[in-house]
Amino acid sequence: MKKMSDTPGTPACKEDDAALATPFVKCLTRLIRAQDTYGSRDGTSDAELLAHFIVSEQQRRTIPIIGDPDPDVLLRINIFYTAVGLTIEGRTGLVASPTMMISNEGFGRVLLTTGRLVVFSKTLRDVHRFGFATLRKLAEAGAKLVDDAIAAIEAYPDVARE
Amino acid sequence: MKKMSDTPGTPACKEDDAALATPFVKCLTRLIRAQDTYGSRDGTSDAELLAHFIVSEQQRRTIPIIGDPDPDVLLRINIFYTAVGLTIEGRTGLVASPTMMISNEGFGRVLLTTGRLVVFSKTLRDVHRFGFATLRKLAEAGAKLVDDAIAAIEAYPDVARE
Repeated sequence: MKKMSDTPGTPACKEDDAALATPFVKCLTRLIRAQDTYGSRDGTSDAELLAHFIVSEQQRRTIPIIGDPDPDVLLRINIFYTAVGLTIEGRTGLVASPTMMISNEGFGRVLLTTGRLVVFSKTLRDVHRFGFATLRKLAEAGAKLVDDAIAAIEAYPDVARE
Repeated sequence: MKKMSDTPGTPACKEDDAALATPFVKCLTRLIRAQDTYGSRDGTSDAELLAHFIVSEQQRRTIPIIGDPDPDVLLRINIFYTAVGLTIEGRTGLVASPTMMISNEGFGRVLLTTGRLVVFSKTLRDVHRFGFATLRKLAEAGAKLVDDAIAAIEAYPDVARE
């Protein structure tokens, strides 16, 4: 049976298109294309580029959380938070850079800082399973991080600029 | 020929004793002892425990900066910044936790944060060669980081407490 989301014009597909048009997801796809040094994915659509970020609940359960996290997952987490930082920069003009510390048990911490301000801090767990259920959820998660970060910058503008 | 610093009562030795008595270095040795799970170094003096932190200029030059940094060096860097964080906590009551990101080329970044405040941020280079010329230099480096961090906390007390 063909999935709803594969058919153009269906609600799921429209939802995906809306997600792909958000500033955060646009930034994310731009970053992924920027890292494609040899242009081997030039013909790939944005949705296909982001396919690895989409992990359904069922898929999540099948991913073991023992052993070192896959380097590809670590790279994806890094790109995700770098895209958050770049979107913040686009809206505020302040550079927000991510600092990640992830142990080989898949446990760690990620910080986004601008100047002396921590705009975002999160404990990461089960990074082996990093992903979002749908493109919309990916877009929402990114947009929320950006909004929260900008609220923090507006609350402490002098600290963020130091 | 016996080195000056090995003889008790000589200037170098007095200098070492003074360094060992500083709050930062005391905290550092306490941390190292805390990680000695089996008590195998119970009989070791503080100066001996810190021996690996002391790297003379000559020794530095002989350490190659190619290849992955030694895990022991990474652990020492971690303990050093954790000790800075603990000393800050001792003086301000605020938890300062280090977040380190070091690539396998020995290049990276370390951040110390309390609440939403970045109290310390540094780019690390050539971590393979991490160390201090003398115990006094180690004590001074740690004390300076603590003082700078506390100055930052005093400048932005509400951000540090958020």
